[in-house]
Amino acid sequence: MADSKPPVSFIGLGAMGFGMATHLLKAGYTVTGFDVWAPTLERFKAAGGLTATTPAEAVKDKEFCVCMVATAQQAQAVLIDGPDAAIKTLPVGAAVLLCSTVPCEYVQSLQKQLESLGRGDILLVDSPVSGGAARAADGTLSIMAGMSDAALQKARPLLAEMADPAKLYIVEGGVGAGSNMKMVHQVLAACQILAASEAMGFADQLGLDLAKAQQTVLGSDAWNWMFEHRTPRMLTQFQPIASAINIIMKDTSIITAEGRRSAFPTLMTSTAEQVYFSGIGRGFGPDDDSSLVRLYTEGKGKVGPVHGLATTEDEKLGLVVDLLRGILLCSAAESLAFANRVGLDLEQVLDLCVNAAGGSRVLEKVGPEIIKAFKEGTAAAGWKASAGELTLQEVSQKLQVAVEEAQRIKTPLFLGTQALSVIRLALAQGEGLAAGAVVKVWGGRL
Amino acid sequence: MADSKPPVSFIGLGAMGFGMATHLLKAGYTVTGFDVWAPTLERFKAAGGLTATTPAEAVKDKEFCVCMVATAQQAQAVLIDGPDAAIKTLPVGAAVLLCSTVPCEYVQSLQKQLESLGRGDILLVDSPVSGGAARAADGTLSIMAGMSDAALQKARPLLAEMADPAKLYIVEGGVGAGSNMKMVHQVLAACQILAASEAMGFADQLGLDLAKAQQTVLGSDAWNWMFEHRTPRMLTQFQPIASAINIIMKDTSIITAEGRRSAFPTLMTSTAEQVYFSGIGRGFGPDDDSSLVRLYTEGKGKVGPVHGLATTEDEKLGLVVDLLRGILLCSAAESLAFANRVGLDLEQVLDLCVNAAGGSRVLEKVGPEIIKAFKEGTAAAGWKASAGELTLQEVSQKLQVAVEEAQRIKTPLFLGTQALSVIRLALAQGEGLAAGAVVKVWGGRL
Repeated sequence: MADSKPPVSFIGLGAMGFGMATHLLKAGYTVTGFDVWAPTLERFKAAGGLTATTPAEAVKDKEFCVCMVATAQQAQAVLIDGPDAAIKTLPVGAAVLLCSTVPCEYVQSLQKQLESLGRGDILLVDSPVSGGAARAADGTLSIMAGMSDAALQKARPLLAEMADPAKLYIVEGGVGAGSNMKMVHQVLAACQILAASEAMGFADQLGLDLAKAQQTVLGSDAWNWMFEHRTPRMLTQFQPIASAINIIMKDTSIITAEGRRSAFPTLMTSTAEQVYFSGIGRGFGPDDDSSLVRLYTEGKGKVGPVHGLATTEDEKLGLVVDLLRGILLCSAAESLAFANRVGLDLEQVLDLCVNAAGGSRVLEKVGPEIIKAFKEGTAAAGWKASAGELTLQEVSQKLQVAVEEAQRIKTPLFLGTQALSVIRLALAQGEGLAAGAVVKVWGGRL
Repeated sequence: MADSKPPVSFIGLGAMGFGMATHLLKAGYTVTGFDVWAPTLERFKAAGGLTATTPAEAVKDKEFCVCMVATAQQAQAVLIDGPDAAIKTLPVGAAVLLCSTVPCEYVQSLQKQLESLGRGDILLVDSPVSGGAARAADGTLSIMAGMSDAALQKARPLLAEMADPAKLYIVEGGVGAGSNMKMVHQVLAACQILAASEAMGFADQLGLDLAKAQQTVLGSDAWNWMFEHRTPRMLTQFQPIASAINIIMKDTSIITAEGRRSAFPTLMTSTAEQVYFSGIGRGFGPDDDSSLVRLYTEGKGKVGPVHGLATTEDEKLGLVVDLLRGILLCSAAESLAFANRVGLDLEQVLDLCVNAAGGSRVLEKVGPEIIKAFKEGTAAAGWKASAGELTLQEVSQKLQVAVEEAQRIKTPLFLGTQALSVIRLALAQGEGLAAGAVVKVWGGRL
């Protein structure tokens, strides 16, 4: 047993890292942990781990290092720049699995730094993860890994240990491709986390019972994973804090920064980012991201007498679903168009996203037709809506009714309004289009 | 004298209406005022006016009625629907000058209502105004009037009495065209009022001296009328209240609603509208619109340690100018593209806008090239930047540096980020374009 499970160092024992590292302990690995926060190290020791006081000490003589710090800046410090950085003692040919969510640009620069520092022998694995602390502790994460063939050969068993067998994605394209895959997934996360707040805030402003609104969405074609997982905490005063606004804000900024680098207009994600900045400007950064609903509900009763047109509960519930559907369509299109821009395998992207936190019924429906269009070109795909499916015009009309009602009751719909504008741009190119044709707005290379 | 200055009724004696009505008194007209707020009527009486207790009483036996209420709903009530509405007693052939800012759709429906109520004899004048309370009292407003030839013949002297001679715009297209002209001007107003707050908020977050930032912008190619008139009040605790957030929010909603009716994507104005809704949700609605800067500055010191890249004062001042230039470019393009969509004379629109509150150096520069493109088609205009002019790519690059710095210091730039996305969409169509070519994003009919 012992020689089939090599010693592993683990840098960064936060909510995710601690779960991943203790899972490796349970699986029989000897794990030496490092974290800047001493109480976490004590806890890790109590769980059966070894501990080190510096990154260099942790990685010494270990063939494998997993790095799960919060940011690229932290990764740079613990691996390269710090006085006791890992690079000083990493054994020749060691594999470094960078599991943090970082920009593609950063992990590629890390590869170059290793080479220019004479450590081209290190096998860098660009392997961000998704799935939350519970799945980290169960060893059933989604992992998207890009690396050289040699690195893959060495690291695959350890990656497989931490991932759900169906959710270990080996991403073509080498170092950087894993981070790109995570990034396009986070387009969905960034938009849909905020969309849950926008939809529930709208429901509240419409005077709906929130539990009823929640159940209606979950049973509709606007179901999405984030809505299902965020809305319960909106009904419990945003407790427990499962994922802070600061976390999704960080990932959102990676997306928009990489978008600028690729000259790709992140129309939806940039809109979400500004709202996240507003939220942290209010001091909400450490709060659970479900609490963004406050930004939509605080005006209730303060904006003077307002009169909506919707009267029945069913009509109002329909508006909430129509709002979400429009947002989900545009976030799905932005995610896949960005994936296409950075050269990812779109089938793999879709498979990952529909089975992860970015999943939605809309993505399941429009994803295949968008991929077909990218593969075959716009004309070949035709973009005609199938019988029984909503056309882009119909999605637009329904969304528009929701946006109009929000305007009457003077509540902001940052994402919904942007989605409507984006769909309008697509519709200017023709009538009778399938919903997925909205991707034309982004898809200069269709 | 008396028979050359006919008796006039004046409905709606708010800040604007009171100034206009008292100016008519000074000019020798007999004016009978009506307002729902009794103290205003007393004040009007003290200024030499006559008063009435209902709209019907006010307009009785007067050949002219000026209506300057706040909203379409109020106009409908005082003219048509109320128990003592003006329509009951308006003399045959009377001219009704609706000077309120209302949707084109509304004033056109008013015309139809008059006809279906058997009052097609009434000469409706669609004549919204611009210029603020001081110019209202001086009789030097900008007025944009659309109406039948018969109505023009009758109403021109009265319109001329209230307008600056150089700023009375007779708009081709009949009833509705005046409101459309006001609307496309208000695209600039809606975006540029918020842009002043966004730029000064960014300046504050960058640690700049605000008076210095203000002077730098005023001396730069990012000068704009709104910035010049809003920023002084940012330095005096938003006092005095010159124009409430509620007012520009109302006009903004007219733009976006008419945009939806025309299937025109109001990318910039819709972004501004959501921020206005956020502001009124905070209870800021009655405050001066310069106070929107609070939405950008409140995060200072609350978002944790942040580090920008700009170090020198000159560099930071440059970022503020670059931010504004990008926003001004996109608001100018949105305004002219919308004007084109609703069929206005673009030369007249430009002449009005550069000489009114929507004016900016950017509009002066790009307006003519955008108009040329609409007239001649894209290919003919060529869209090549002239020597010494910033290309669209250069505007984009400079704006991008500002957006990147804002991301580092975690401050929202709602308009700047949207402008960057919009410019990216235009740039996807080619390189080396003149700045005005951004209008392609809106201009499906170029």
